[in-house]
Amino acid sequence: MPSIFTKIINREIPGHIVAEDEQHIAFLDIMPLVKGHVLVVPKKEVDYIYDLDDALYTSLHLFAKKVAKAQEKVIPCTRIGVAVIGLEVSHVHIHLVPLKTMDDINFSRPKLKLSTDELEEIANSIKAEFDKA
Amino acid sequence: MPSIFTKIINREIPGHIVAEDEQHIAFLDIMPLVKGHVLVVPKKEVDYIYDLDDALYTSLHLFAKKVAKAQEKVIPCTRIGVAVIGLEVSHVHIHLVPLKTMDDINFSRPKLKLSTDELEEIANSIKAEFDKA
Repeated sequence: MPSIFTKIINREIPGHIVAEDEQHIAFLDIMPLVKGHVLVVPKKEVDYIYDLDDALYTSLHLFAKKVAKAQEKVIPCTRIGVAVIGLEVSHVHIHLVPLKTMDDINFSRPKLKLSTDELEEIANSIKAEFDKA
Repeated sequence: MPSIFTKIINREIPGHIVAEDEQHIAFLDIMPLVKGHVLVVPKKEVDYIYDLDDALYTSLHLFAKKVAKAQEKVIPCTRIGVAVIGLEVSHVHIHLVPLKTMDDINFSRPKLKLSTDELEEIANSIKAEFDKA
């Protein structure tokens, strides 16, 4: 069965996409830790990041770097934090989390609830910066 | 002033080193979230991961992948989790954390206290796997 991320990639379910190329995609986490929390995902459905071949592993991280640079421009933060956990959805995803404090990247704390309109506005602002670069 | 990590790299202070090459080093976090918690660091002292040039950024991640593969072999875990926060020590470091549950990578929880002997034994076992690969 395709992962929920593959369904977003295939436009079978909606996603707030901020960046995309042939092999990678980035969209907002709909249960964000903070505003502008993005997931960076390879289109190839692999469970574990350290099982990616070196080429895709490298291109995914370079893609994530470009996404982080776009986030920094539009989301007020000190820097972009990174996390890869992967115990829930078995399709590689890098969390990019705009940080002000350490606790902003504590996955045990309650998630934000944002409206679809708010998510779409944030996604569009990050996407505009990504597309400019 | 050199960072605490630069002092470990220069052997000015002790570190439980698990892997090293010309541009990168990995050693145990002495305040680990779980046993086998490793920090992967570029020898070049840069504050923010997304300020690394693409070549060093890429080689650092490939180095981290090799370290993670060594950790998996000796530390009982489901997978290796990854985090880059960087609000405390201003020298890039990738946390590689052997995970069983989500909470194993919660930086807000109390850290483990391990003896120097325990840390050295863990470091040696990871290093032995790294050196074999």
